[in-house]
Amino acid sequence: MDAITRGGGEWSPMGGAHGLIWAAEPDRFPDDLPESIRWVQLYSAGVEQWFASGVIERHPEVVFTSAAGAFSATVAEHALALLLAGVRALPEQWSTTTWRQDEFFGKVGTLRGSRVAIVGAGGIGRALIPMLAAVGARVVAVNRSGVAVPGAEETLPADRTDEIWDRVDHVVIAAPATAATRHLVGAEQLSRLRPHSWVVNVARGSLVDTDALVTALRDRTIGGAGLDVTDPEPLPDGHPLWSLPNAVVTPHCSNPPAVRPAAFADHVARNVARFAAGERLNAVIDPVAGY
Amino acid sequence: MDAITRGGGEWSPMGGAHGLIWAAEPDRFPDDLPESIRWVQLYSAGVEQWFASGVIERHPEVVFTSAAGAFSATVAEHALALLLAGVRALPEQWSTTTWRQDEFFGKVGTLRGSRVAIVGAGGIGRALIPMLAAVGARVVAVNRSGVAVPGAEETLPADRTDEIWDRVDHVVIAAPATAATRHLVGAEQLSRLRPHSWVVNVARGSLVDTDALVTALRDRTIGGAGLDVTDPEPLPDGHPLWSLPNAVVTPHCSNPPAVRPAAFADHVARNVARFAAGERLNAVIDPVAGY
Repeated sequence: MDAITRGGGEWSPMGGAHGLIWAAEPDRFPDDLPESIRWVQLYSAGVEQWFASGVIERHPEVVFTSAAGAFSATVAEHALALLLAGVRALPEQWSTTTWRQDEFFGKVGTLRGSRVAIVGAGGIGRALIPMLAAVGARVVAVNRSGVAVPGAEETLPADRTDEIWDRVDHVVIAAPATAATRHLVGAEQLSRLRPHSWVVNVARGSLVDTDALVTALRDRTIGGAGLDVTDPEPLPDGHPLWSLPNAVVTPHCSNPPAVRPAAFADHVARNVARFAAGERLNAVIDPVAGY
Repeated sequence: MDAITRGGGEWSPMGGAHGLIWAAEPDRFPDDLPESIRWVQLYSAGVEQWFASGVIERHPEVVFTSAAGAFSATVAEHALALLLAGVRALPEQWSTTTWRQDEFFGKVGTLRGSRVAIVGAGGIGRALIPMLAAVGARVVAVNRSGVAVPGAEETLPADRTDEIWDRVDHVVIAAPATAATRHLVGAEQLSRLRPHSWVVNVARGSLVDTDALVTALRDRTIGGAGLDVTDPEPLPDGHPLWSLPNAVVTPHCSNPPAVRPAAFADHVARNVARFAAGERLNAVIDPVAGY
């Protein structure tokens, strides 16, 4: 309910409400909605079971929205945590048990003034841009269309991804896994990065050529890698990525269950504000397309 | 020069310039400045040698600015890196060599929706606020006067610091070391924090009671501590803070020499913009006060 009031809305019993936030399963959804209800916000990002149950079909007068995109910010936060930890040389400082200031004076870097490529500027990439801007980094965004992404210094279409590698300090991978994005980061791309460059992957493991990455990390031709996803996944015991000092692996936990309610509340607050303003809602479900 | 144009200024030979960016020592400073020069930006934060050399006294017609505050953002970035790493459970994931997703689902947290106290909302604290805002955290600021700090949800005067401990998720210490702030974080304060709370100190070691902190970390009554400063400092070999899994020590390197030029460039860009707009410059040196 805090999310409703934060969005400028007002909580109301269902009889007089215009919108309905539904955090339960489809089988408990009422057959008849009060006429006043014009919008239903669901809790899940995937909505197959809502179509299967016939609920959406039964209420053609209502706009349904999913939670798609609600969790972009928490994944973006994880990407920022991995990138900042890398740039600030935290992994190496962690494993140190003596005061080595002179050494770390030379190893601690900053994102301020750096240029970060975000490959795949969808929900996660877009959520990451203001976080990077807040620490003074500039963003080169890559998306399918090349249509300028707000907040990015430059936006390139996917077919020009190849131009980024020797022009940026760091790379964050946030693109979907497709045939076209498989091994998007390979030996040649890594060779064009810089000795201080960090590669962060919060998308899917297949976008990075793991063997090429291990070689680059071993030879220290790049600064390091922060990986929430790996290929293979789960990463098997004994894999070199577990022991390389400049690799940080988190086991695909950038969006853990415990943090989802807070993210959903933000999503609701934004949609309440849009609903109140008569704007197009986020994550509208298309009853014809089925998602 | 990039910083000058970024600030909306224009580079000019000294003869026609209105401002002078001086990155060298006082003994090389010209005895006579062109009459057009009305502002001189110095590179250092401390300016004792500029007073000692008589340069400032010799040019009463000119406004001198120092680099004071220029490095606040890089220290704030370090604080953010430590806090995010803690909240995202990176230290523990670092030392793990097997895929333990279920376990870390329960350990990875988020700053989104959390409340962070910044004790000492001077330059560093103020620089940190927009960074925290970008990841969705709310800030309770504590400063001497209690005058509202822009971007903070709430600002408390220092004599009400005691109210924060059971009201916030995390605490960042950024206050100066004085008799009044010594052991500002002690056993009682730590006992009022929460099991997931992280304490980050980027100010001075003396503000935290180290023994009380070690106890809290051992007993896991708080989540962890990220310390760029310690007491004693340097932290001696064998100190428990080196080996506690929920303590992260960086050896007072939040503002390493290598990152200072970029931070200074930002400072210059901001001052050029202010100069062009006829606004009060940042870090104006008071020729009477001597700093």
